[in-house]
Amino acid sequence: MNDLKLDKVSKVLKEVRKSVPLVHCITNYVTINDCANILLSYGASPAMCEAYDEVFDFVKISSALYINIGTFTREQESSAILAAVSAKTHNIPVVLDPVACAAIPKKIQFIDKLFKVGRVDVIKGNIGEIKFLAGETSNVKGVDSLEDGEGALECSRILSEKYNCVVAATGKKDFIVQGKNSAIIENGTEMLTNITGAGCMLGALCAAACGAFEDKFMAVVGAILSINIASEEAYKEAKAPGSFRVKLIDCIYELSEEKLKKEGKIAWN
Amino acid sequence: MNDLKLDKVSKVLKEVRKSVPLVHCITNYVTINDCANILLSYGASPAMCEAYDEVFDFVKISSALYINIGTFTREQESSAILAAVSAKTHNIPVVLDPVACAAIPKKIQFIDKLFKVGRVDVIKGNIGEIKFLAGETSNVKGVDSLEDGEGALECSRILSEKYNCVVAATGKKDFIVQGKNSAIIENGTEMLTNITGAGCMLGALCAAACGAFEDKFMAVVGAILSINIASEEAYKEAKAPGSFRVKLIDCIYELSEEKLKKEGKIAWN
Amino acid sequence: MNDLKLDKVSKVLKEVRKSVPLVHCITNYVTINDCANILLSYGASPAMCEAYDEVFDFVKISSALYINIGTFTREQESSAILAAVSAKTHNIPVVLDPVACAAIPKKIQFIDKLFKVGRVDVIKGNIGEIKFLAGETSNVKGVDSLEDGEGALECSRILSEKYNCVVAATGKKDFIVQGKNSAIIENGTEMLTNITGAGCMLGALCAAACGAFEDKFMAVVGAILSINIASEEAYKEAKAPGSFRVKLIDCIYELSEEKLKKEGKIAWN
Repeated sequence: MNDLKLDKVSKVLKEVRKSVPLVHCITNYVTINDCANILLSYGASPAMCEAYDEVFDFVKISSALYINIGTFTREQESSAILAAVSAKTHNIPVVLDPVACAAIPKKIQFIDKLFKVGRVDVIKGNIGEIKFLAGETSNVKGVDSLEDGEGALECSRILSEKYNCVVAATGKKDFIVQGKNSAIIENGTEMLTNITGAGCMLGALCAAACGAFEDKFMAVVGAILSINIASEEAYKEAKAPGSFRVKLIDCIYELSEEKLKKEGKIAWN
Repeated sequence: MNDLKLDKVSKVLKEVRKSVPLVHCITNYVTINDCANILLSYGASPAMCEAYDEVFDFVKISSALYINIGTFTREQESSAILAAVSAKTHNIPVVLDPVACAAIPKKIQFIDKLFKVGRVDVIKGNIGEIKFLAGETSNVKGVDSLEDGEGALECSRILSEKYNCVVAATGKKDFIVQGKNSAIIENGTEMLTNITGAGCMLGALCAAACGAFEDKFMAVVGAILSINIASEEAYKEAKAPGSFRVKLIDCIYELSEEKLKKEGKIAWN
Repeated sequence: MNDLKLDKVSKVLKEVRKSVPLVHCITNYVTINDCANILLSYGASPAMCEAYDEVFDFVKISSALYINIGTFTREQESSAILAAVSAKTHNIPVVLDPVACAAIPKKIQFIDKLFKVGRVDVIKGNIGEIKFLAGETSNVKGVDSLEDGEGALECSRILSEKYNCVVAATGKKDFIVQGKNSAIIENGTEMLTNITGAGCMLGALCAAACGAFEDKFMAVVGAILSINIASEEAYKEAKAPGSFRVKLIDCIYELSEEKLKKEGKIAWN
């Protein structure tokens, strides 16, 4: 049964490479280049279109929308809302990355608006962010979570039921929840915390997977598993962050369904 | 005769390194860092100045202007027009990269304005963009062209005559046209399509070459030949996109006139 | 005596890694990713928050503020002033990187305002910029200084006394001055001039050091020594800019107090 699920999850990669989803990203400028490069290596087609006058039409031709609220300019903020409205109109899946929502409470207003006028299929945050969104106190430092995994599954479930969406809480372990279903991924490497953009790249891959795979829960599990296993491969070859970051892109590119099936450590519930 | 032309084209690199042209870039944030780094490795001096209050004066002291319309913010859009006006006033060559013009028709208005009030010496786009600008239907996905080379030479010629400028259409083969003159470059590697920014970097190098070399047609051929041959060298050492991208910068830095003469595959007409 | 000073300077690295300072950066988009990655490798926690509505509160929870005026958008310009006001209110050290101030005189107005309403603890510029700010004529090309070190120490001292802050003028040698104290660092490698962002990264590290170490003069000397020695290590392994840049991040990550003490070449006055 679990092997069947792992089989299904591993197929996400194949579907991405087959359909080459166009992933529209509105994301912070710190890691925008990393997101574009990892999408290409995963097999997707990135488009970083954020001009207010263009987003509505551009989302229409996209396979998925990734919204990362890390360092929004005012134009990006308006564009992200309009893009989500377009996604709702045109039935395009949306992945929300609520970066820094626990450090900057004003970001909550944006998120509320996104749910009210737009659409969100997946919330992907670090554990601190997910806990904060679920109404728990959470331990963050700037944009980084200092949380271990305690309470992550419960908070993800609360959020998933509140918003009727897939929720992913990432950390040492990654928790993915949709209603009663959940998966806990134990792959990955500590070195991911030594580069900027690991979370953003993971979020962008979730959007790519949702753009290519019907089952959004499995799509998100598949995307997170992919970056985690690629990071393990990268760490075998590179023990310092500069080289590791280069190898991470290489290893996503070289990833195979077989590798995912062989290395995946997922507990399903 | 052809060898003489290849000799001349190879000299572009030497001229860039001798004169170290200051290349003013107004470009998208996805690949702005890549453009700056490749300009440095080529031998030019990059300046990514886009503040509306500063561009007019800054273009005046530049050797060339590169305008990439990929993901314009509103301020960038205004700044780009003003920069092109300054380029016209101060006789500075301008390279236009019409990114995504085929996917977002509104970008055409910007391009029209640029020609009307400013100046454009070179249009450098992928084949899909060049075909679209020449009034042909073209096959694009987001910012990427799905075109093979058919019709590229004709469309480039139409555009070149319409606007009296050099036109470069890049793809598996690269087509460079100025009036009756044309060159088709057959160097390069498929791996360039697996990294973001290959087209932007190529455009920035065209601007550097135009800032250092009087004959703009030859300058553009020289710049495109350089990145193509560097990409072949990079691919010898790196078969995955993360490493390839690093090596591409290395190989531009290590490029020599001799290498260009030895490896260049150009058909002239 | 000098060995004691070198000991103290080398301790800056340890303090950064112990306290993991949250470094709030308002910086140009060309090298924002490089700044975030080098801060992580140094041991600090980067936060690239620049939204006008958020900066005041975000500075309050930060350990240091880094302001780089390279390619300010209008929103960044307003945010930087507000951030500096917050830094003054909440007693947070500020490092100013006056990029391109010698090429774009309008930037001087911004700097004046920053001193008037905000706070600056450290001015870190290339020698051309520091000379210009000190009222000397200086030789610059775009954002790059063509100055050798002549007059750098005197100009740094003038600025330091005028503004009562630490001044660092970087070039082939680096000059750090606070009132009567000065240090001249002779480490580093020419290859740093072949990548974009070396100066920005150095500035960001100065902010991290100031966020972790009480003595701001020693903090700045320690940060500059760190990137210089890391660059020497990187150059041993990588002779071209693409690879060098990757290795630079690796070598900052692998840097030790012992390495700094062994390799540091500092003349104190």
